[in-house]
Amino acid sequence: MALQNHLSTTISSSSSAFLAPSNLGSSRASNVSVPAKRIGTVRCVAAPHEEKTTYKTKVSRNANIAKLQAGYLFPEIARRKAAHLQKYPDAKVISLGIGDTTEPIPDAITSAMAKRSYALSTLEGYSGYGAEQGEKPLRAAIASTFYRDLGIGEEDIFVSDGAKCDISRLQVVFGSQVTMAVQDPSYPAYVDSSVIMGQTGLYQQDIEKYAKIEYMKCTPENGFFPDLSTVARTDIIFFCSPNNPTGSAATREQLTRLVKFAKDNGSIIVYDSAYAMYMSDDNPQSIFEIPGAKEVALETSSFSKYAGFTGVRLGWTVVPKELLFSDGSPVAKDFSRIVCTCFNGASNISQAGGLACLSPEGLSAMREVIGFYKENTEIIMDTFSSLGFKVYGGKNAPYVWVHFPGRSSWDVFSEILEKTHVVTTPGSGFGPAGEGFVRVSAFGHRNNILEACRRFKQLYK
Amino acid sequence: MALQNHLSTTISSSSSAFLAPSNLGSSRASNVSVPAKRIGTVRCVAAPHEEKTTYKTKVSRNANIAKLQAGYLFPEIARRKAAHLQKYPDAKVISLGIGDTTEPIPDAITSAMAKRSYALSTLEGYSGYGAEQGEKPLRAAIASTFYRDLGIGEEDIFVSDGAKCDISRLQVVFGSQVTMAVQDPSYPAYVDSSVIMGQTGLYQQDIEKYAKIEYMKCTPENGFFPDLSTVARTDIIFFCSPNNPTGSAATREQLTRLVKFAKDNGSIIVYDSAYAMYMSDDNPQSIFEIPGAKEVALETSSFSKYAGFTGVRLGWTVVPKELLFSDGSPVAKDFSRIVCTCFNGASNISQAGGLACLSPEGLSAMREVIGFYKENTEIIMDTFSSLGFKVYGGKNAPYVWVHFPGRSSWDVFSEILEKTHVVTTPGSGFGPAGEGFVRVSAFGHRNNILEACRRFKQLYK
Repeated sequence: MALQNHLSTTISSSSSAFLAPSNLGSSRASNVSVPAKRIGTVRCVAAPHEEKTTYKTKVSRNANIAKLQAGYLFPEIARRKAAHLQKYPDAKVISLGIGDTTEPIPDAITSAMAKRSYALSTLEGYSGYGAEQGEKPLRAAIASTFYRDLGIGEEDIFVSDGAKCDISRLQVVFGSQVTMAVQDPSYPAYVDSSVIMGQTGLYQQDIEKYAKIEYMKCTPENGFFPDLSTVARTDIIFFCSPNNPTGSAATREQLTRLVKFAKDNGSIIVYDSAYAMYMSDDNPQSIFEIPGAKEVALETSSFSKYAGFTGVRLGWTVVPKELLFSDGSPVAKDFSRIVCTCFNGASNISQAGGLACLSPEGLSAMREVIGFYKENTEIIMDTFSSLGFKVYGGKNAPYVWVHFPGRSSWDVFSEILEKTHVVTTPGSGFGPAGEGFVRVSAFGHRNNILEACRRFKQLYK
Repeated sequence: MALQNHLSTTISSSSSAFLAPSNLGSSRASNVSVPAKRIGTVRCVAAPHEEKTTYKTKVSRNANIAKLQAGYLFPEIARRKAAHLQKYPDAKVISLGIGDTTEPIPDAITSAMAKRSYALSTLEGYSGYGAEQGEKPLRAAIASTFYRDLGIGEEDIFVSDGAKCDISRLQVVFGSQVTMAVQDPSYPAYVDSSVIMGQTGLYQQDIEKYAKIEYMKCTPENGFFPDLSTVARTDIIFFCSPNNPTGSAATREQLTRLVKFAKDNGSIIVYDSAYAMYMSDDNPQSIFEIPGAKEVALETSSFSKYAGFTGVRLGWTVVPKELLFSDGSPVAKDFSRIVCTCFNGASNISQAGGLACLSPEGLSAMREVIGFYKENTEIIMDTFSSLGFKVYGGKNAPYVWVHFPGRSSWDVFSEILEKTHVVTTPGSGFGPAGEGFVRVSAFGHRNNILEACRRFKQLYK
């Protein structure tokens, strides 16, 4: 039984699906969930015949994986949400926690995927293994849509099943000997994949940081851009803009400084631009808008938040041929080798969807969906502002970063959940500098956003 | 220019797409290719403005990746095929090299995928992030279809984007400190992923093996099953049955010995059953048919060769809760953590296809396609047998392993290509014990298989 319990806790340690409704058949995927029993994304039941086993192999558990913290952000939230639903089984819980898209995918895009599906039943339309790096027309369309005039060609684009997956593949390329820096707070996958690859030391409970990772503090005091004069040199610098979770976007001047910093140190920037299309301000949407960036940066991005492809799975990574390791060998060469050995290409149907996304009709449909979520963001920002809170982010990203000075993120999270039945994400879960903040996601149906905001107003009036 | 050339050679180092026709739009994916310029899966052209750069970062190249051999099997074949097409631009080349499926996917399956695509445009049918471990109905269907009465439940099934991808994720779970054994010859991804993770020493040119890997010789002399009394203990044992490339399948008695060997040594078997549905003999189709296997084995498999999903991307891995590391912690727990951190689930559309594959109609359609390829196999076997060759495999797998005693695999490969314009795979590319063999794949349109066999008969009559 102990093992069963152990597994049931840990197998659901999803870093992103924790709040996603079970994705069962055609059951509606809504961000409002009512019955507690539908919440768990993974049900771990005892096997029919429960065989008591004490046999253990002699294979040692990977010490790097053992370093990962059990109190990982998202499972903890899932547990608290589940407990909340047990306590209030009739509560109309609204999830503005995980950044899971909620709006249907525009017809022009799904029709292209349906068409590709049907074609696979024909001799003419059937295709088997494609290039692991992606289909040529899609690579070309990504290059010309997002990197026109930036000197990035289709041969620099590697199509993938998502930015999160590419981040781990990049870590496999880098290996265990590199040092790395992250924005603090930041998307947990950067740190976790680094721990898994053995790049870090142990987790230090007192300061809530892993040893050997350089945490670059991003707070209102520095405009959410790190003070590079205090940042130690590392081999790799993860940098996400517009940022998850703070919602802030780096300016051209800031990114120019970042590129210079990397060049002076001989570092590689892994630039995550998954929210670039949410940009309202005139900031760069790609690191490659900064002169010289191709020699020190690669960039990963995704269709997830643009086209609602969180379930369809499609992203890409740009590795410029100019980016070289210290021995002069191209990073792109090793990334390609890893992609070919550890991956087999994104689904051909998803790739057909991606190509449709980048048609004039698809682009305009995506912009409409993004516009919808941006209206949600404004509603959330206005709500918290009107209640006297300092809010950050929002303008260039679908996340609102609300400041509760002097309070614990987890306390605020619990207060909001307890009193409004709305799930948010405690800022400290993204890193120690997130303490005192709560992230509110703007992904949601409009009526849920409005309802959540009504409840926020009642709570904090 | 040197860099450009370097990249153009290496970026195409695909381990599987090398012979696949470019998967461009709806262009026909056939295993007959004529014009040389359509061969390359990745075209690496000079950037419009060729900027001479000498800047190098200070990031060291991962030493493990540097260990990988440049003379990797598949790019070498691709180069030879390309050279052949330059020499004979009008040759009707037939590719029986890579195991890429060629027959259209049955309607019942593609319709389900099209339906799921369209549904994503509706409020009711939209779904975002699903559980990284896969959708519950698909996990349940895999468990009940392939593991009924074996004590494997849906909670033990992890749906993925393919077995090759899961092999690398498993290596990330195991880490750099484990030792590993592979069948010799074997599918190159096992060895390469091990090298990448740092589990091996350097490649030893003289014996054509990496240091620290235990190569388990599988030849006609031992019935393609290793003499376990001569095999050193390792932490991990990769074992593929029905085997790629030899086409042989292990018997129940042999697998019972393998499981006992693992149990005596405290090893973990990574059992690859991607060709199990091709089995004609009464051999186990899953390692879990062997009593006690759940304590020492996990199993990876795929829809690729059953449903023609090589491009759709869908597979699964079974990690029984009974499988424990030496500290008593479940392997499934760490695999789940890696799946959640390094992966985000298979495409929901592909999963809808997988579920349709396992419906009664889908199963019968898959069996029909498999039956078709098995007829191809017989045609190839009969051809080589009638020419006096010793042929192995074929009966339980879509690969025919033809013996050319005393000859070099590469010489035979070249002879066949030069004189018949048919691409095969030299056995030595799968490991030193493959020397003297050539693998002929049965994936192909019937007319191409018949034409290839006509040419073989002319050559070796």
